[in-house]
Amino acid sequence: MSEESIRRPGGRSARVRAAVLDATLAELADGGYDQLTVEAIVARSGVHKATLYRRWGGIDGLIADVLSRSVEQPWQVPDTGSLGGDLHAITRLIYEGFTDPEQGAIPRNLIVAALRSSQAAQALTGFFETQHGLAAEVVSRAVRRGEVPEGTDAVDVVRTACAPLYYRLFVTGEPLEEEAAGRAAEAALAAARAGAFLPRERPA
Amino acid sequence: MSEESIRRPGGRSARVRAAVLDATLAELADGGYDQLTVEAIVARSGVHKATLYRRWGGIDGLIADVLSRSVEQPWQVPDTGSLGGDLHAITRLIYEGFTDPEQGAIPRNLIVAALRSSQAAQALTGFFETQHGLAAEVVSRAVRRGEVPEGTDAVDVVRTACAPLYYRLFVTGEPLEEEAAGRAAEAALAAARAGAFLPRERPA
Repeated sequence: MSEESIRRPGGRSARVRAAVLDATLAELADGGYDQLTVEAIVARSGVHKATLYRRWGGIDGLIADVLSRSVEQPWQVPDTGSLGGDLHAITRLIYEGFTDPEQGAIPRNLIVAALRSSQAAQALTGFFETQHGLAAEVVSRAVRRGEVPEGTDAVDVVRTACAPLYYRLFVTGEPLEEEAAGRAAEAALAAARAGAFLPRERPA
Repeated sequence: MSEESIRRPGGRSARVRAAVLDATLAELADGGYDQLTVEAIVARSGVHKATLYRRWGGIDGLIADVLSRSVEQPWQVPDTGSLGGDLHAITRLIYEGFTDPEQGAIPRNLIVAALRSSQAAQALTGFFETQHGLAAEVVSRAVRRGEVPEGTDAVDVVRTACAPLYYRLFVTGEPLEEEAAGRAAEAALAAARAGAFLPRERPA
Protein backbone atom coordinates (compact mmCIF):
# COMPACT_ATOMS: atom_id res chain seq x y z
CA MET A 1 0.00 0.00 0.00
CA SER A 2 1.51 3.35 -0.96
CA GLU A 3 1.08 6.55 1.01
CA GLU A 4 -1.10 7.87 -1.79
CA SER A 5 -3.49 4.91 -1.70
CA ILE A 6 -4.58 5.68 1.87
CA ARG A 7 -8.11 7.06 1.77
CA ARG A 8 -9.35 8.32 5.11
CA PRO A 9 -11.44 11.25 6.24
CA GLY A 10 -9.45 14.35 7.13
CA GLY A 11 -6.44 15.87 5.43
CA ARG A 12 -3.38 14.03 4.20
CA SER A 13 -1.67 14.51 7.54
CA ALA A 14 -4.61 12.92 9.38
CA ARG A 15 -4.62 10.03 6.92
CA VAL A 16 -0.91 9.40 7.42
CA ARG A 17 -1.38 9.48 11.17
CA ALA A 18 -4.29 7.04 11.03
CA ALA A 19 -2.35 4.62 8.81
CA VAL A 20 0.76 4.74 10.99
CA LEU A 21 -1.06 4.41 14.33
CA ASP A 22 -3.30 1.62 13.00
CA ALA A 23 -0.16 -0.18 11.84
CA THR A 24 1.43 0.34 15.27
CA LEU A 25 -1.65 -1.17 16.93
CA ALA A 26 -1.64 -4.12 14.54
CA GLU A 27 2.04 -4.74 15.29
CA LEU A 28 1.36 -4.50 19.04
CA ALA A 29 -1.39 -7.09 18.63
CA ASP A 30 0.99 -9.45 16.83
CA GLY A 31 4.06 -9.07 18.99
CA GLY A 32 5.23 -7.21 22.06
CA TYR A 33 7.21 -4.06 22.59
CA ASP A 34 10.43 -6.02 22.09
CA GLN A 35 9.33 -7.05 18.59
CA LEU A 36 8.02 -3.62 17.61
CA THR A 37 10.18 -2.04 14.90
CA VAL A 38 9.86 1.08 12.80
CA GLU A 39 10.57 -1.11 9.74
CA ALA A 40 7.51 -3.30 10.39
CA ILE A 41 5.30 -0.22 10.83
CA VAL A 42 6.68 1.27 7.60
CA ALA A 43 5.94 -1.97 5.75
CA ARG A 44 2.43 -2.25 7.14
CA SER A 45 1.41 1.40 6.78
CA GLY A 46 3.10 2.22 3.48
CA VAL A 47 4.27 5.51 4.99
CA HIS A 48 7.89 6.48 4.32
CA LYS A 49 10.38 5.79 7.05
CA ALA A 50 11.67 9.38 6.92
CA THR A 51 8.14 10.73 7.47
CA LEU A 52 7.69 8.42 10.39
CA TYR A 53 10.95 9.39 12.10
CA ARG A 54 10.37 13.09 11.41
CA ARG A 55 6.91 13.10 12.91
CA TRP A 56 7.16 10.56 15.76
CA GLY A 57 10.90 10.29 16.47
CA GLY A 58 10.64 6.50 16.85
CA ILE A 59 8.80 3.69 18.63
CA ASP A 60 8.28 5.50 21.93
CA GLY A 61 6.77 8.51 20.17
CA LEU A 62 4.47 6.19 18.24
CA ILE A 63 3.27 4.49 21.39
CA ALA A 64 2.69 7.85 23.07
CA ASP A 65 0.63 8.99 20.05
CA VAL A 66 -1.42 5.77 20.03
CA LEU A 67 -2.35 6.59 23.63
CA SER A 68 -3.09 10.23 22.76
CA ARG A 69 -5.41 9.10 19.99
CA SER A 70 -7.23 6.75 22.37
CA VAL A 71 -7.90 9.74 24.60
CA GLU A 72 -9.36 11.63 21.63
CA GLN A 73 -11.84 8.78 21.06
CA PRO A 74 -13.85 8.82 24.29
CA TRP A 75 -15.82 5.72 25.21
CA GLN A 76 -19.44 5.51 26.21
CA VAL A 77 -19.45 5.62 30.01
CA PRO A 78 -22.00 3.07 31.31
CA ASP A 79 -25.26 4.47 32.66
CA THR A 80 -27.29 1.52 33.98
CA GLY A 81 -29.20 3.44 36.65
CA SER A 82 -27.20 2.17 39.64
CA LEU A 83 -23.62 2.54 40.81
CA GLY A 84 -23.32 -1.22 41.17
CA GLY A 85 -24.49 -1.77 37.60
CA ASP A 86 -22.14 0.92 36.28
CA LEU A 87 -19.09 -0.38 38.16
CA HIS A 88 -19.83 -3.92 37.00
CA ALA A 89 -20.07 -2.61 33.42
CA ILE A 90 -16.74 -0.77 33.73
CA THR A 91 -14.82 -3.73 35.17
CA ARG A 92 -16.45 -5.94 32.53
CA LEU A 93 -15.15 -3.63 29.79
CA ILE A 94 -11.63 -3.94 31.20
CA TYR A 95 -11.98 -7.71 31.54
CA GLU A 96 -13.14 -8.00 27.92
CA GLY A 97 -10.48 -5.61 26.64
CA PHE A 98 -7.61 -7.62 28.10
CA THR A 99 -8.96 -11.12 27.53
CA ASP A 100 -10.05 -10.68 23.91
CA PRO A 101 -8.12 -13.40 22.05
CA GLU A 102 -7.29 -11.13 19.09
CA GLN A 103 -7.10 -7.61 20.52
CA GLY A 104 -6.22 -8.29 24.16
CA ALA A 105 -2.48 -8.10 23.51
CA ILE A 106 -2.75 -4.43 22.47
CA PRO A 107 -3.60 -2.81 25.82
CA ARG A 108 -1.26 -5.24 27.55
CA ASN A 109 1.65 -4.37 25.30
CA LEU A 110 0.93 -0.63 25.58
CA ILE A 111 1.24 -0.81 29.36
CA VAL A 112 4.37 -2.97 29.23
CA ALA A 113 5.86 -0.43 26.80
CA ALA A 114 5.08 2.38 29.22
CA LEU A 115 7.08 0.63 31.92
CA ARG A 116 10.13 0.91 29.67
CA SER A 117 9.82 4.34 28.09
CA SER A 118 9.32 7.60 29.95
CA GLN A 119 7.61 9.16 26.91
CA ALA A 120 5.07 6.33 26.73
CA ALA A 121 4.72 6.36 30.53
CA GLN A 122 3.77 10.04 30.48
CA ALA A 123 1.20 9.39 27.76
CA LEU A 124 -0.20 6.44 29.71
CA THR A 125 -0.59 8.52 32.86
CA GLY A 126 -2.48 11.12 30.79
CA PHE A 127 -4.62 8.37 29.26
CA PHE A 128 -5.65 7.03 32.67
CA GLU A 129 -6.27 10.53 34.01
CA THR A 130 -8.78 11.06 31.20
CA GLN A 131 -10.38 7.62 31.61
CA HIS A 132 -10.68 8.03 35.38
CA GLY A 133 -12.20 11.46 34.90
CA LEU A 134 -14.82 10.13 32.48
CA ALA A 135 -15.61 7.08 34.62
CA ALA A 136 -15.95 9.25 37.72
CA GLU A 137 -19.27 10.41 36.27
CA VAL A 138 -20.88 7.13 37.42
CA VAL A 139 -20.01 8.07 41.00
CA SER A 140 -21.21 11.68 40.64
CA ARG A 141 -24.55 10.32 39.43
CA ALA A 142 -24.68 7.92 42.39
CA VAL A 143 -24.06 10.83 44.77
CA ARG A 144 -26.97 12.73 43.16
CA ARG A 145 -29.17 9.64 43.52
CA GLY A 146 -28.18 9.39 47.19
CA GLU A 147 -26.54 5.97 46.70
CA VAL A 148 -23.22 7.04 48.21
CA PRO A 149 -22.40 9.92 50.54
CA GLU A 150 -21.79 13.46 49.28
CA GLY A 151 -18.05 14.17 49.20
CA THR A 152 -17.11 10.64 48.01
CA ASP A 153 -13.83 10.74 46.06
CA ALA A 154 -15.21 9.62 42.69
CA VAL A 155 -11.88 8.85 41.04
CA ASP A 156 -10.79 6.75 44.00
CA VAL A 157 -13.94 4.64 43.71
CA VAL A 158 -13.04 4.04 40.05
CA ARG A 159 -9.42 3.21 40.91
CA THR A 160 -10.55 0.74 43.57
CA ALA A 161 -12.91 -1.01 41.15
CA CYS A 162 -10.28 -1.28 38.39
CA ALA A 163 -7.06 -1.89 40.35
CA PRO A 164 -7.64 -5.57 41.27
CA LEU A 165 -7.94 -6.48 37.56
CA TYR A 166 -4.68 -4.78 36.64
CA TYR A 167 -3.04 -6.26 39.75
CA ARG A 168 -3.71 -9.74 38.38
CA LEU A 169 -2.67 -8.82 34.85
CA PHE A 170 0.52 -6.88 35.53
CA VAL A 171 1.73 -7.83 38.99
CA THR A 172 0.73 -11.20 40.42
CA GLY A 173 0.13 -12.92 37.08
CA GLU A 174 -2.99 -14.61 38.47
CA PRO A 175 -5.61 -15.40 35.82
CA LEU A 176 -8.19 -12.69 35.20
CA GLU A 177 -11.62 -14.28 35.35
CA GLU A 178 -14.94 -12.60 34.81
CA GLU A 179 -15.86 -13.37 38.40
CA ALA A 180 -12.84 -11.44 39.70
CA ALA A 181 -13.98 -8.41 37.70
CA GLY A 182 -17.41 -8.60 39.31
CA ARG A 183 -15.96 -8.98 42.81
CA ALA A 184 -13.77 -5.90 42.29
CA ALA A 185 -16.85 -3.88 41.33
CA GLU A 186 -18.75 -5.17 44.37
CA ALA A 187 -15.92 -4.32 46.76
CA ALA A 188 -15.60 -0.75 45.43
CA LEU A 189 -19.38 -0.33 45.68
CA ALA A 190 -19.53 -1.60 49.26
CA ALA A 191 -16.61 0.59 50.32
CA ALA A 192 -18.17 3.66 48.64
CA ARG A 193 -21.52 3.03 50.35
CA ALA A 194 -19.76 2.68 53.70
CA GLY A 195 -18.11 6.09 53.24
CA ALA A 196 -14.55 4.77 52.80
CA PHE A 197 -13.87 7.39 50.08
CA LEU A 198 -14.88 10.44 52.12
CA PRO A 199 -12.13 12.92 53.00
CA ARG A 200 -10.43 11.80 56.19
CA GLU A 201 -9.86 14.00 59.18
CA ARG A 202 -6.17 14.32 59.66
CA PRO A 203 -4.59 14.31 63.07
CA ALA A 204 -3.67 17.90 64.05
CA MET B 1 36.29 -10.55 46.00
CA SER B 2 37.13 -14.13 45.13
CA GLU B 3 34.75 -17.06 45.49
CA GLU B 4 36.93 -18.33 48.33
CA SER B 5 36.68 -15.09 50.34
CA ILE B 6 32.90 -15.40 50.71
CA ARG B 7 32.13 -16.37 54.29
CA ARG B 8 28.49 -17.12 54.89
CA PRO B 9 26.62 -19.62 57.02
CA GLY B 10 25.74 -22.84 55.23
CA GLY B 11 27.79 -24.90 52.83
CA ARG B 12 29.80 -23.61 49.91
CA SER B 13 26.81 -23.96 47.60
CA ALA B 14 24.67 -21.83 49.92
CA ARG B 15 27.45 -19.22 50.12
CA VAL B 16 27.76 -19.05 46.35
CA ARG B 17 23.99 -18.67 46.01
CA ALA B 18 23.90 -15.90 48.62
CA ALA B 19 26.74 -14.01 46.94
CA VAL B 20 25.20 -14.30 43.48
CA LEU B 21 21.66 -13.38 44.54
CA ASP B 22 22.89 -10.47 46.68
CA ALA B 23 24.86 -9.23 43.67
CA THR B 24 21.77 -9.59 41.49
CA LEU B 25 19.75 -7.52 43.97
CA ALA B 26 22.46 -4.88 44.15
CA GLU B 27 22.52 -4.67 40.34
CA LEU B 28 18.72 -4.41 40.27
CA ALA B 29 18.92 -1.55 42.75
CA ASP B 30 21.45 0.28 40.57
CA GLY B 31 19.88 -0.27 37.17
CA GLY B 32 16.89 -1.93 35.62
CA TYR B 33 16.33 -5.23 33.89
CA ASP B 34 17.68 -3.76 30.67
CA GLN B 35 21.00 -2.97 32.35
CA LEU B 36 21.25 -6.29 34.18
CA THR B 37 24.10 -8.42 32.81
CA VAL B 38 25.68 -11.69 33.88
CA GLU B 39 29.06 -9.96 33.57
CA ALA B 40 28.15 -7.33 36.19
CA ILE B 41 26.89 -10.02 38.57
CA VAL B 42 30.09 -12.00 38.04
CA ALA B 43 32.18 -8.91 38.79
CA ARG B 44 30.20 -8.04 41.90
CA SER B 45 29.88 -11.55 43.35
CA GLY B 46 33.31 -12.93 42.49
CA VAL B 47 31.61 -16.15 41.39
CA HIS B 48 32.83 -17.66 38.11
CA LYS B 49 30.73 -17.01 35.06
CA ALA B 50 30.64 -20.73 34.21
CA THR B 51 29.26 -21.55 37.69
CA LEU B 52 26.62 -18.91 37.27
CA TYR B 53 25.45 -20.11 33.86
CA ARG B 54 25.52 -23.74 34.95
CA ARG B 55 23.40 -23.13 38.03
CA TRP B 56 21.01 -20.37 36.90
CA GLY B 57 21.08 -20.50 33.11
CA GLY B 58 21.16 -16.70 32.87
CA ILE B 59 19.46 -13.50 33.97
CA ASP B 60 15.90 -14.87 34.02
CA GLY B 61 16.91 -17.82 36.15
CA LEU B 62 18.68 -15.45 38.55
CA ILE B 63 15.60 -13.27 38.89
CA ALA B 64 13.42 -16.32 39.47
CA ASP B 65 15.79 -17.50 42.22
CA VAL B 66 15.86 -14.05 43.86
CA LEU B 67 12.07 -14.36 44.11
CA SER B 68 12.30 -17.94 45.42
CA ARG B 69 14.71 -16.81 48.11
CA SER B 70 12.34 -13.99 49.14
CA VAL B 71 9.65 -16.62 49.67
CA GLU B 72 12.04 -18.59 51.92
CA GLN B 73 12.47 -15.53 54.14
CA PRO B 74 8.94 -14.97 55.42
CA TRP B 75 8.09 -11.55 56.80
CA GLN B 76 6.44 -10.77 60.10
CA VAL B 77 2.72 -10.48 59.34
CA PRO B 78 1.32 -7.50 61.29
CA ASP B 79 -0.80 -8.29 64.35
CA THR B 80 -2.08 -4.98 65.71
CA GLY B 81 -5.30 -6.34 67.22
CA SER B 82 -7.67 -5.04 64.54
CA LEU B 83 -8.17 -5.74 60.85
CA GLY B 84 -7.97 -2.02 60.09
CA GLY B 85 -4.65 -1.72 61.89
CA ASP B 86 -3.27 -4.83 60.18
CA LEU B 87 -4.34 -3.75 56.67
CA HIS B 88 -2.88 -0.28 57.25
CA ALA B 89 0.38 -1.92 58.36
CA ILE B 90 0.46 -4.14 55.26
CA THR B 91 -0.18 -1.31 52.78
CA ARG B 92 2.38 0.80 54.65
CA LEU B 93 4.98 -1.95 54.23
CA ILE B 94 4.32 -1.95 50.47
CA TYR B 95 4.43 1.84 50.34
CA GLU B 96 7.76 1.89 52.18
CA GLY B 97 9.19 -0.95 50.12
CA PHE B 98 8.58 0.80 46.82
CA THR B 99 9.34 4.38 47.86
CA ASP B 100 12.61 3.70 49.72
CA PRO B 101 15.15 5.93 47.94
CA GLU B 102 17.88 3.27 47.98
CA GLN B 103 16.05 -0.08 47.88
CA GLY B 104 12.77 0.86 46.20
CA ALA B 105 14.08 0.12 42.72
CA ILE B 106 14.58 -3.57 43.59
CA PRO B 107 10.94 -4.70 43.89
CA ARG B 108 10.03 -2.43 41.02
CA ASN B 109 12.67 -3.91 38.74
CA LEU B 110 11.76 -7.47 39.77
CA ILE B 111 8.16 -6.93 38.67
CA VAL B 112 9.17 -5.23 35.42
CA ALA B 113 11.49 -8.19 34.73
CA ALA B 114 8.61 -10.60 35.31
CA LEU B 115 6.59 -8.84 32.61
CA ARG B 116 9.32 -9.77 30.15
CA SER B 117 10.35 -13.26 31.13
CA SER B 118 8.02 -16.21 31.59
CA GLN B 119 10.43 -17.86 34.03
CA ALA B 120 10.50 -14.76 36.23
CA ALA B 121 6.73 -14.32 35.81
CA GLN B 122 6.11 -17.82 37.14
CA ALA B 123 8.38 -17.16 40.12
CA LEU B 124 6.60 -13.85 40.77
CA THR B 125 3.18 -15.52 40.74
CA GLY B 126 4.50 -18.05 43.27
CA PHE B 127 5.93 -15.22 45.35
CA PHE B 128 2.58 -13.40 45.52
CA GLU B 129 0.72 -16.63 46.23
CA THR B 130 2.90 -17.11 49.30
CA GLN B 131 2.64 -13.48 50.40
CA HIS B 132 -1.13 -13.43 49.96
CA GLY B 133 -1.41 -16.68 51.92
CA LEU B 134 0.62 -15.28 54.82
CA ALA B 135 -1.22 -11.93 54.83
CA ALA B 136 -4.59 -13.70 54.76
CA GLU B 137 -3.96 -14.57 58.41
CA VAL B 138 -4.95 -10.98 59.38
CA VAL B 139 -8.40 -11.65 57.90
CA SER B 140 -8.74 -15.07 59.55
CA ARG B 141 -8.03 -13.44 62.89
CA ALA B 142 -10.61 -10.73 62.14
CA VAL B 143 -13.20 -13.43 61.38
CA ARG B 144 -12.43 -15.08 64.74
CA ARG B 145 -12.80 -11.71 66.48
CA GLY B 146 -16.14 -11.19 64.73
CA GLU B 147 -14.91 -8.10 62.86
CA VAL B 148 -15.89 -9.42 59.44
CA PRO B 149 -18.38 -12.14 58.47
CA GLU B 150 -17.51 -15.83 58.52
CA GLY B 151 -16.81 -17.02 54.97
CA THR B 152 -15.01 -13.81 53.92
CA ASP B 153 -12.49 -14.55 51.14
CA ALA B 154 -9.33 -13.62 53.05
CA VAL B 155 -6.99 -13.49 50.05
CA ASP B 156 -9.38 -11.24 48.16
CA VAL B 157 -9.42 -8.77 51.06
CA VAL B 158 -5.62 -8.70 50.89
CA ARG B 159 -5.64 -8.26 47.09
CA THR B 160 -8.14 -5.39 47.38
CA ALA B 161 -5.99 -3.62 49.97
CA CYS B 162 -2.78 -3.99 47.96
CA ALA B 163 -3.97 -3.60 44.36
CA PRO B 164 -4.50 0.20 44.33
CA LEU B 165 -0.85 0.74 45.30
CA TYR B 166 0.47 -1.47 42.49
CA TYR B 167 -2.05 0.11 40.10
CA ARG B 168 -0.38 3.49 40.65
CA LEU B 169 3.14 2.07 40.48
CA PHE B 170 2.82 -0.20 37.44
CA VAL B 171 -0.19 0.95 35.45
CA THR B 172 -1.33 4.57 35.78
CA GLY B 173 2.03 5.98 36.86
CA GLU B 174 0.29 8.20 39.43
CA PRO B 175 2.48 9.05 42.43
CA LEU B 176 2.24 6.63 45.36
CA GLU B 177 1.65 8.68 48.49
CA GLU B 178 1.32 7.40 52.02
CA GLU B 179 -2.26 8.65 52.09
CA ALA B 180 -3.20 6.49 49.09
CA ALA B 181 -1.86 3.44 50.96
CA GLY B 182 -4.07 4.28 53.92
CA ARG B 183 -7.13 4.81 51.74
CA ALA B 184 -6.62 1.43 50.05
CA ALA B 185 -6.53 -0.26 53.47
CA GLU B 186 -9.70 1.60 54.55
CA ALA B 187 -11.59 0.64 51.40
CA ALA B 188 -10.70 -3.06 51.74
CA LEU B 189 -11.72 -2.95 55.42
CA ALA B 190 -15.06 -1.29 54.68
CA ALA B 191 -15.83 -3.73 51.87
CA ALA B 192 -14.91 -6.72 54.06
CA ARG B 193 -17.11 -5.48 56.90
CA ALA B 194 -19.99 -5.01 54.45
CA GLY B 195 -19.68 -8.64 53.32
CA ALA B 196 -18.40 -7.86 49.81
CA PHE B 197 -15.97 -10.80 49.99
CA LEU B 198 -18.54 -13.46 50.88
CA PRO B 199 -19.22 -16.19 48.31
CA ARG B 200 -21.83 -14.94 45.87
CA GLU B 201 -24.93 -16.86 44.97
CA ARG B 202 -24.78 -17.67 41.31
CA PRO B 203 -27.80 -17.52 39.08
CA ALA B 204 -29.03 -21.07 38.43
